[in-house]
Amino acid sequence: MKLMNDLLIRAARGESTERTPVWLMRQAGRILPEYRQVRKDAGSFKTLVNTPDLASEVTIQPVEILGVDAAIIFSDILVLPEAMGLPYEIAESKGPWFGRTVENRHDIEGLKIAEADDLSFVLKAIEQSKKKLAGRAPLIGFAGAPWTIFAYMIEGTGSKTFSKAKKFLYCEPALSHKLLEKITLSTIYYLKGQIAAGADIIQVFDSWAGVLSPVQYREFSQRYINLISEGISEVPVIVFAKGAPYSVTGFAQSPCDVIGMDWTMNVKEYRTKAPNKTLQGNLDPCVLYAVPDVIKQETEKMLTAFGPDRHICNLGHGLYPDTEKEKVKFFVDTVKNFRHHTVIH
Amino acid sequence: MKLMNDLLIRAARGESTERTPVWLMRQAGRILPEYRQVRKDAGSFKTLVNTPDLASEVTIQPVEILGVDAAIIFSDILVLPEAMGLPYEIAESKGPWFGRTVENRHDIEGLKIAEADDLSFVLKAIEQSKKKLAGRAPLIGFAGAPWTIFAYMIEGTGSKTFSKAKKFLYCEPALSHKLLEKITLSTIYYLKGQIAAGADIIQVFDSWAGVLSPVQYREFSQRYINLISEGISEVPVIVFAKGAPYSVTGFAQSPCDVIGMDWTMNVKEYRTKAPNKTLQGNLDPCVLYAVPDVIKQETEKMLTAFGPDRHICNLGHGLYPDTEKEKVKFFVDTVKNFRHHTVIH
Repeated sequence: MKLMNDLLIRAARGESTERTPVWLMRQAGRILPEYRQVRKDAGSFKTLVNTPDLASEVTIQPVEILGVDAAIIFSDILVLPEAMGLPYEIAESKGPWFGRTVENRHDIEGLKIAEADDLSFVLKAIEQSKKKLAGRAPLIGFAGAPWTIFAYMIEGTGSKTFSKAKKFLYCEPALSHKLLEKITLSTIYYLKGQIAAGADIIQVFDSWAGVLSPVQYREFSQRYINLISEGISEVPVIVFAKGAPYSVTGFAQSPCDVIGMDWTMNVKEYRTKAPNKTLQGNLDPCVLYAVPDVIKQETEKMLTAFGPDRHICNLGHGLYPDTEKEKVKFFVDTVKNFRHHTVIH
Repeated sequence: MKLMNDLLIRAARGESTERTPVWLMRQAGRILPEYRQVRKDAGSFKTLVNTPDLASEVTIQPVEILGVDAAIIFSDILVLPEAMGLPYEIAESKGPWFGRTVENRHDIEGLKIAEADDLSFVLKAIEQSKKKLAGRAPLIGFAGAPWTIFAYMIEGTGSKTFSKAKKFLYCEPALSHKLLEKITLSTIYYLKGQIAAGADIIQVFDSWAGVLSPVQYREFSQRYINLISEGISEVPVIVFAKGAPYSVTGFAQSPCDVIGMDWTMNVKEYRTKAPNKTLQGNLDPCVLYAVPDVIKQETEKMLTAFGPDRHICNLGHGLYPDTEKEKVKFFVDTVKNFRHHTVIH
């Protein structure tokens, strides 16, 4: 089915658009009462993720309720390690954790390379979301970056420092590469499955990029993200390396289409260093706590900094769950109503 | 008493030194069995901080045991908010937390501007540490940056996002400045007290710099750190804005003497942007998990990147508590044994 709104795809490809497309990381989530209802009916977060009917329902909610220019499939980056052999749980208050973690060569050899069929519930959710969207907006597929998945596999849970995972990199570099290769292959198969199921564009989330040194980032993260970007030629690829501003130079040379930016990153610097990439971001999610006047002012300042082309408007991080729905809607409307002034020289 | 080892002070002032001075953030801590013994005898972390005899004992341990070129007074940045009227507790597993937090104008008006006498136990610990050091190494005094103290006062505990504290900045900018001014004044009085008691140099820790946008950082953090640097002319001042690489430009223009760097920051970029400052840092603390060969290689790579002058060697973050004491010692020795090759043009 042809997309009636393809602003995001065109912007990702570097084409000019009538206005800047907008979506928000974590837009399908706790800020919407409609989501909270489905989540409650599902009983658990994992049931919601694993049930295509429900996952597709919350996937399309932000398009219908907030009017954003893209849906992103409702899922979790940790379905991939689970498909590779490491089941995860979500503790409501404490976030995700793994009962078993990777500690040595034996554990790594025991992991399977996941294939798309191992994640058929996600692919079905994508098919159903595409049907429900009926061309109203493109659908974003996604996966975690290999380093971020690796970090969870070793650490077993979230962490401020991920020192256990980083210790593994420093003490077992060869084994680390072995594990990262397995994750990367699995990710490529998984993303190709998502595209076959209907995903119009892909985002790779490197949530824990920021804990690595630039040298380690290049060796243990960026090269594997680049392999993924090289492997995915069917649709545009967005990469988001949160907390790693130095990575822009490397991504500028890579085959990705869009570089995501958090709110600490400098637009002018990114434009200079990656002139041929579309940029995505980067409003501080805390701006959405402010009064409407401040939201409008900060949003327009950001839009002006990025300029009219090669920009996908987003936050610099996922929406915080205690943000008011009305303020999110106000942010989306502000972006949609904004027109760049034409400068006449 | 004259310092027998003043490498750190001379490097901080930009003078050439025979070799690069070295110390480690959190060097007085759980990695030393000798520390764990005193900590056990004290019964609680706060008792250790609040008892000058014990605090001074653990302060000098790293000089005697690890051979570092500086001691840093054993204390906590949260003694300052406590002196202003907000008592804190340390829960062994969960870190610090405040029973009362700052929520509104009334709470801010209720806070007192702390004076050095309110923190006499720290000043006494400094006096005793100086006596015990007997000139073997300089003593570093310290305080939290006003933004970091503010973040704890509002949030009440550590946080990944500090979204509550940032919400306060966006929703109550005028009140935020009022609170930051009170913290800044208290900090200057406190640091002047530390210097009068014997501190040879001061470090300001902005542990939560990284959660702010560059614009917010300049408005709500950097200007107050600069006020402190301006207020302290007696001894050199080190500023450490963890996770805020964009701040180097601002600090380069400020009256501070030394800029601290975490391991994600680029030495060449800092040298270019802050040619007249001494730099401190910046080894990834996880390197100290590796085998000695890797520790040596990474340490020498770092020393070479900084060059022979205007460098104080340190980690890019505090020592992680599960680091082996022998590896820390090996790191210190590697720095002390290293000689820069003279390049002949």
